[in-house]
Amino acid sequence: MTQVLKVSSSSDPSATAGAIANGIRETGGSEIQVIGPRAVNQAVKAIAIARGYLAASGLDVYCTPAFATIRVGDDGEEKTAIQFVVRTRHGLRGGAWAGAGV
Amino acid sequence: MTQVLKVSSSSDPSATAGAIANGIRETGGSEIQVIGPRAVNQAVKAIAIARGYLAASGLDVYCTPAFATIRVGDDGEEKTAIQFVVRTRHGLRGGAWAGAGV
Repeated sequence: MTQVLKVSSSSDPSATAGAIANGIRETGGSEIQVIGPRAVNQAVKAIAIARGYLAASGLDVYCTPAFATIRVGDDGEEKTAIQFVVRTRHGLRGGAWAGAGV
Repeated sequence: MTQVLKVSSSSDPSATAGAIANGIRETGGSEIQVIGPRAVNQAVKAIAIARGYLAASGLDVYCTPAFATIRVGDDGEEKTAIQFVVRTRHGLRGGAWAGAGV
C-alpha cells in the first residue's frame, strides 16, 4: 500500500525526501498531497532531492502531478490540492520498465 | 530538439499546458525552467493540466524535477532554478515504454 505524505509550506525538503525514498524502497511508490504554492514548492524540492538519494541505488524517480479535491478541518471544507504520485522506472513494481533506455 | 519553456509566477497554467502538450506532440518532450515558489506552482499546475490534454490522446505524461544553476540578467547572477523534464510513457521517443502497464 502506497503511503500518503502531507507536505506543508514549512516541511523540510530533505526530511520529506527521506520519507519519499523510504516509501519507494518499501512499497514502490509514494503519494504526496499539498495545498498552496509554497507547499507545492517544498514537495517539488523534496522529489528532486529524493531523485538524488535513489539515483545512487540505480532507481530513476519520476512523478505525475494531478489536481485533487480534499476535505479539511472539522467542517469538511473542500480545497483543491495537488497530488504527486512518485514512482520509479526501475522500482519494485516497475520491473517491466527496466531497460527501456529512455 | 526539446524546447525549454520558462515559466514565471504570472504565467497562465492553461496556456503553459498547451505549450507543454505541443512540445510533447512535436518533439516527444518539454523542459520547463522556473525560479521561485510561485513559478514552481504554476509549472506544476500546467503539467497537471497538460496530463489531461494528452490523456485524451492516450499519452501518459510524467515529469522529473531537478535543481539547476542558471545565470540571469546582464551581470550573469547565479540562481538556483527547478528544471522539470516532461515526457510521456507512450511518446514519440518513448516507444519502448508502451505497454509496460505501470
